Amino acid sequence: MIYFITSNDGKFKEAKLFLRKNYNVEIERIKGIEVPEIQSDKLEEIAEFSLNFLLQKNKAPQFVEDAGLFIEILNGFPGPYSAYVYKTIGNQGILNLLKPIRGNNEVKAYFKAVIAYYDFKNNKNVLFEGISHGLISDRIKGDKGWGFDPIFIPIEGNGMTFAEMGIENKNKYSHRIDALKKLGNYIKKFGV
Amino acid sequence: MIYFITSNDGKFKEAKLFLRKNYNVEIERIKGIEVPEIQSDKLEEIAEFSLNFLLQKNKAPQFVEDAGLFIEILNGFPGPYSAYVYKTIGNQGILNLLKPIRGNNEVKAYFKAVIAYYDFKNNKNVLFEGISHGLISDRIKGDKGWGFDPIFIPIEGNGMTFAEMGIENKNKYSHRIDALKKLGNYIKKFGV
Repeated sequence: MIYFITSNDGKFKEAKLFLRKNYNVEIERIKGIEVPEIQSDKLEEIAEFSLNFLLQKNKAPQFVEDAGLFIEILNGFPGPYSAYVYKTIGNQGILNLLKPIRGNNEVKAYFKAVIAYYDFKNNKNVLFEGISHGLISDRIKGDKGWGFDPIFIPIEGNGMTFAEMGIENKNKYSHRIDALKKLGNYIKKFGV
Repeated sequence: MIYFITSNDGKFKEAKLFLRKNYNVEIERIKGIEVPEIQSDKLEEIAEFSLNFLLQKNKAPQFVEDAGLFIEILNGFPGPYSAYVYKTIGNQGILNLLKPIRGNNEVKAYFKAVIAYYDFKNNKNVLFEGISHGLISDRIKGDKGWGFDPIFIPIEGNGMTFAEMGIENKNKYSHRIDALKKLGNYIKKFGV
């Protein structure tokens, strides 16, 4: 049994189904735990700080995940603060920000997810990274998914934004699924 | 003796001079301490988390400070993440973001600073808040100060941005000085 500590219902459900189906790994949640996330430019630091905080309270097999959208021409913005930036200025804010500077150029960006996992057996933290490279659309497209999905076009996705794809299709290019695969393979190899 | 734990040389120097001159209070620094800042919409939570973290290591009279620029029409953005947002998209980024939505309206904003102080004598945390209300300029003006100073016009500052004022003048309206005054008065009243 592994715990995935997250306050995001969608993330938990997605991980639970994916790991069960593909790796026969069962995950559970401990509700009511507040996981502090540190301020940092690096998702790795944020995820590992959260994991270490949790380990002080409960030394059990568990993982946390952090993700963000990194836009090259904006020096990585919104990066680790994607959730806050989405909540305050939203997709339209990102488009407004890019409009005067994008010209006719492609706006390169990537989604990145980092999983920090505590390998109980070997008493060590292991990080898994997933990346999805793509472009920022010049308008909002699609209504599936969440967050910045309607403005992110993965590089191999036939020009569709994440929000125009169904979940199955999105999962082919998803940074989060990419990281979960690495976690799944690690567990398959080393056990829990 | 009180410690001000900060990695910002400018902030430390400003506080040291101000508290010595006006309150006869001496502050010192402990170098090489990394202060984790948590992700939160509330400066109060961020500052107090940092203070509690420091108190676990060293139970001494000390304070930390956190500040941000809150723009009303952007739902408070960039708020607690002002340093990161300044580093990535800068003043021009904020102006670009506002351009399509400001029309001919004033863009209200405020700078806020929160000091979290550990009152050693009474073994408790005390928070002090300073606010400077103002408007966001439609262009970058002035070259003094730092960060978002060139686009922030305090309400009582005769239309000048913080970056157009000298430090003496800026201090009259400064959120940080406002919070430091409250700390100074508290110490004068209750001792250290």
